[in-house]
Formats: sequence, C-alpha cells, structure tokens
Amino acid sequence: MLPDHPTIAIVGAGAVGGYYGARLAQHRHDVHFLLRSDYDAIRRDGWTIRSIAGDFRLAPGQTQIYKDVREMPRCDLVIVTLKTTANDQFERIVGPLLKDDTAILTLQNGLGNEDRLAELFGPQRVLGGLAFVCANRLAPGVIHHIDHGMIRVGEFGGGSSERASRIARIFQSSNVPCEMLDDLRCGRWSKLVWNVPFNGLGAVLNLTTDRLIDDPAGVQLLSAIMREVIAAAEQLGMNMPADMVDRMMRHTQTMGAYRSSMQIDRQAARPMEVEAILGEPLRQAAKAAVPTPCLEMLYRLVKLVDNHSPSALQADSSGR
Amino acid sequence: MLPDHPTIAIVGAGAVGGYYGARLAQHRHDVHFLLRSDYDAIRRDGWTIRSIAGDFRLAPGQTQIYKDVREMPRCDLVIVTLKTTANDQFERIVGPLLKDDTAILTLQNGLGNEDRLAELFGPQRVLGGLAFVCANRLAPGVIHHIDHGMIRVGEFGGGSSERASRIARIFQSSNVPCEMLDDLRCGRWSKLVWNVPFNGLGAVLNLTTDRLIDDPAGVQLLSAIMREVIAAAEQLGMNMPADMVDRMMRHTQTMGAYRSSMQIDRQAARPMEVEAILGEPLRQAAKAAVPTPCLEMLYRLVKLVDNHSPSALQADSSGR
Repeated sequence: MLPDHPTIAIVGAGAVGGYYGARLAQHRHDVHFLLRSDYDAIRRDGWTIRSIAGDFRLAPGQTQIYKDVREMPRCDLVIVTLKTTANDQFERIVGPLLKDDTAILTLQNGLGNEDRLAELFGPQRVLGGLAFVCANRLAPGVIHHIDHGMIRVGEFGGGSSERASRIARIFQSSNVPCEMLDDLRCGRWSKLVWNVPFNGLGAVLNLTTDRLIDDPAGVQLLSAIMREVIAAAEQLGMNMPADMVDRMMRHTQTMGAYRSSMQIDRQAARPMEVEAILGEPLRQAAKAAVPTPCLEMLYRLVKLVDNHSPSALQADSSGR
Repeated sequence: MLPDHPTIAIVGAGAVGGYYGARLAQHRHDVHFLLRSDYDAIRRDGWTIRSIAGDFRLAPGQTQIYKDVREMPRCDLVIVTLKTTANDQFERIVGPLLKDDTAILTLQNGLGNEDRLAELFGPQRVLGGLAFVCANRLAPGVIHHIDHGMIRVGEFGGGSSERASRIARIFQSSNVPCEMLDDLRCGRWSKLVWNVPFNGLGAVLNLTTDRLIDDPAGVQLLSAIMREVIAAAEQLGMNMPADMVDRMMRHTQTMGAYRSSMQIDRQAARPMEVEAILGEPLRQAAKAAVPTPCLEMLYRLVKLVDNHSPSALQADSSGR
C-alpha cells in the first residue's frame, strides 16, 4: 500500500518528469529528483515552470535534487520519465530506490517499458501511465508546459486498484488531471495508433503534423499505417472503435503545426525512441501474425534516419 | 530509313543531352540543340566538356543552337533528353521537328516516355535508350562526364531493326559505347530494379548509395523494394536473373558515395522524376495484380518530399 504521504522519486527529469515532478512538489508532496546534466543549474536557480495551468517557481531550497542515485532515499513511489533509449539503465538507477513495496509508475512512451520493469523488479510493483502533455525543456530547470497535461494511470496487470486510485488522487491534488485506466495495454495501443504514423513519418520526412494531413499522399500513408496498428491491436485482443482513423485525423487537424517528439529529436540530432514507438509494436504484430508491411518499412526508415543523424555519425566516427 | 548523314535534334540539353549531343557534334554529325536558359551562355562560350573519355570544347561557331523550336529545321532523328517532369511539353517541342519518317529516340529515365511519344506521334517512330552515364551540368554549357557512358538502344515495339543499328553506329563513331537492345521493356525494368530503391530512398532519406548499403536496415529496405520490382517485371512477362538483388548490391558497392538523380534533385530543390521512376512502375504492377506495398509506400513518401521541397512550397505559397 502507498502511505498517505508517500516519498516520490522522479527518475529522468526532462520536460515530462520536470513538469509533473515540480507540480507534485509545488503541492507539498515529498519529491526527490534524480538529475544529470541539469543538476548544477537547478541547484543554483531551482525550477521555473511556464504553464498554461499557471506559472510557478520552486526555489533551490524548495526542491530535493540528486545527481547520484546512491544518495537518494528509498521511496514509496518511483515515477519513471526516462527517455526509452536509456532503458538499459533501469537496473542501475531504479533498483537502489526500491523498498519491498515500492510502486513503480512509468510515464514513458510506447511499448515494452512496463514489461522490462516487471522483468527486473517484479510485475506486482509496476503501473503505467499515458501522459497526454505537450511540454518542452527550454533550458536546465526551465520547462514550458504548452498544452494538455492529462495522465491516465493503470496497473501493468490490468484492472483497478486502490494503489492506482491513490496515485490518481495525488496527481489530481497537484493540479494535474488524472484518470484511471482499467486496460493499460489497450490505452497504450490506442495512443500508438497516433504515435506510430505521426512520429515515424514526422521523423523520416521532417514534416509537422499539419503538413502530413494536408497532403493526399500523406493522408494515404497515415491511414495505411494506422490501419495496420489497429489490425495488430485487434488481433491481440483489444477492441478499437470503428471510426478511429477518422477520429485521429480530425483530432490532428486541431493541433496546428505540431512537431512529434521524434521529429524534435531528429532536428536536435538526439537519439529517437525507435524501439518503444515502432520496434516493439512491430514485433508484437509479427508474433500475432498480422501483416504490417508499412509499419515494417517505416521502422527501417526511422532506424536509418536515427543511425545517420549527425550525433550517431559523430559517435560512429569517433569510435573508429 | 535514316539517311547516311541524318540531321539530329537534341531536345533538352541538360547533362545527358549536352554530353551526348556534343559528342555527336564533335564527330561531325549535324546536331541541332534546343536550349532554354543556357542559350545565351552557349551562344557566347560554346560547349566545354570535361570527360573521362577525353575533354573537348565546341566553339560557338561549331554548334547549332536554338531557343525557339520553330526556328529549328525538321530533323531525321530527334533525341529526347528532357526531364520527364516536362513530358507535357512533348507536343509543343517535339511535334515541329518531325518529318514523315523522323525517328524519335528517348533517353529519358523510367517508364512511360516511349508510350507517351507513341501516343502523340505514332509508335512506328519511337525508340528508347538506356543511358548508363554519370554526368553533371556544372554551369551553362559546361558538362562534367564523370563515369560510364554506355547507351543501349531498342525499338519501342521490340526486336532489332536496321534503324536501331544505324543509331548505334552513329554513337559508336562518336566515342560513345552503344549496344542494341532486343527487348527495350525488359531493359527498362532491369534498370528500374536499381533505380526505384536507390532513387526513392536516396530522395526520401537524403542518403548516398554507400550509406544505404552499409546499414542493415538499408539493405533490408533495398532488397524488399527490389524484390517487388522484380516480381512485377516477371508477372508482366519478363525474365529477371535469379541473383539480381545480390548482383545489384555488389555493383553498388563499387560506386562509392553516389548521389542518385532524385537525391540531387532534392538537394537542389528541383522537381523529381516521381512518376517515371516510381508512379508508372507502381501502376503497371497494380494492373498486373502484383502486391507492392513497399513500392506504394515509397512512391507516396517521395511525393510528399517532392511536394514539400522548398521550390514546391514557394510555388504553392505564391499561387495563393
């Protein structure tokens, strides 16, 4: 059981972890941030949050930050907001934070994150959350919360739980809309129906969402990919609404010139979350024997872009 | 019949037309170039050819150039080297050059060019040629012939002909290796097995051939696309060698960091030959009921890149 006033660790304090962690701390929750490159700046200046839900600051004395996980207390709740490309660090940076009954909530993108945490630390600990939030890290400790913000939380094993509803209340009491999710897996796949095509094509073509949906060739590509993701989800036992493609297209029209996270990573020459967003869904579809030629091609295209980004090439040439 | 000393028109004097036309003129053939933007420079400075087969120049007095097709003589042989994106100009700029028995030889890329010329001017006039040449236009009238140079010429209707062999001898006598092709259609499709994947992926990803074949994801994409093109060709009645994919890969390894024409067009923000290289093969495969999901996706990706190149966007916004 989570205690009434749990100690909370935020592992991976980029835009998403920084925003939600700072909201929790603003509302007097006992939050401990694990930081790397931003540590010194936040030690000096604290957090500055510019948010559509209200700006605020946390002075250095109002935030508990660490750059070494071994100096952190073991916590009741560990919220994982690492980029999925760093999932090979789970053991090193999540392990030391765990007590016997610590709950782990991953707010990361895509598939496979809960599974990996469950393998390492036991499935009974693990919850997952979908963060529907648009936020950027403007500078170390400076986060811009641009739009949305809702989190949907569910148990890795499915179903409802007292623990999940307590986590939801913690967020709700911190000015973060939060809902419970009975079927986390179905929630993840539903989000993928949007994320796979818009992240994948955004990364490969370096085009914002409005450019993709304004072009007939773009609409054909998006629809073909969405239909494959939906077919895979249904074959895996989930029900998707019949009008899902249309619904996603209409929703995207309201978003303006939106850059997906993979497009942003491409532009910044940072590693992309290829496996969580494309590779793992592709592998699950293949296991279920669903033909996904477009998804497969998209995955390989994104891998090529990722392998040939300036940062990858630099790492490559310095390694030789 | 082609006369012993035919008058020859070169329609579209970019790198390919400029190089071959200048070679013919250098060897005393009666060549008439139709030019547009390069007319004034060539009027002033003539042609300068830097070539692995030997550099040469044609002074202004040694070349017959025109900027208006109506000032040109009707010719015995019209060699079409227009970019296929300008094929809607055939009537206007090929029509006035024709006598009753003028032969038309298109050296353009991809599929559909002979068909369109045959529709407009009669199939009995039409021949096609595959130009295996690597040449760049460095400046108006300045062509760099970098590598290869062989032409393979065949009748649109297939089979051998006295006319095709005479055209071959004209090229051969001008320091241009030239072979006859009994099955032009099979030659075109064989070339597409390379052109479709390397041009398409080169354009979408802005990657040279060496980058594509050095990456496992690239090899998987290239092979999948090649196999679809081969399957379409075979369903359409052509025989392709069993080891064609391997052969193309090995050949590409000898080419170094080669930029396909579509990648060059992308970098120069020029229109790409999307329909001739991708759209027409796709439509022919669809007619033959061959499933080509990768080719279809590649076609749409290239169209998106083409539609969103800086030049297309500029044209678009000025049109509104």
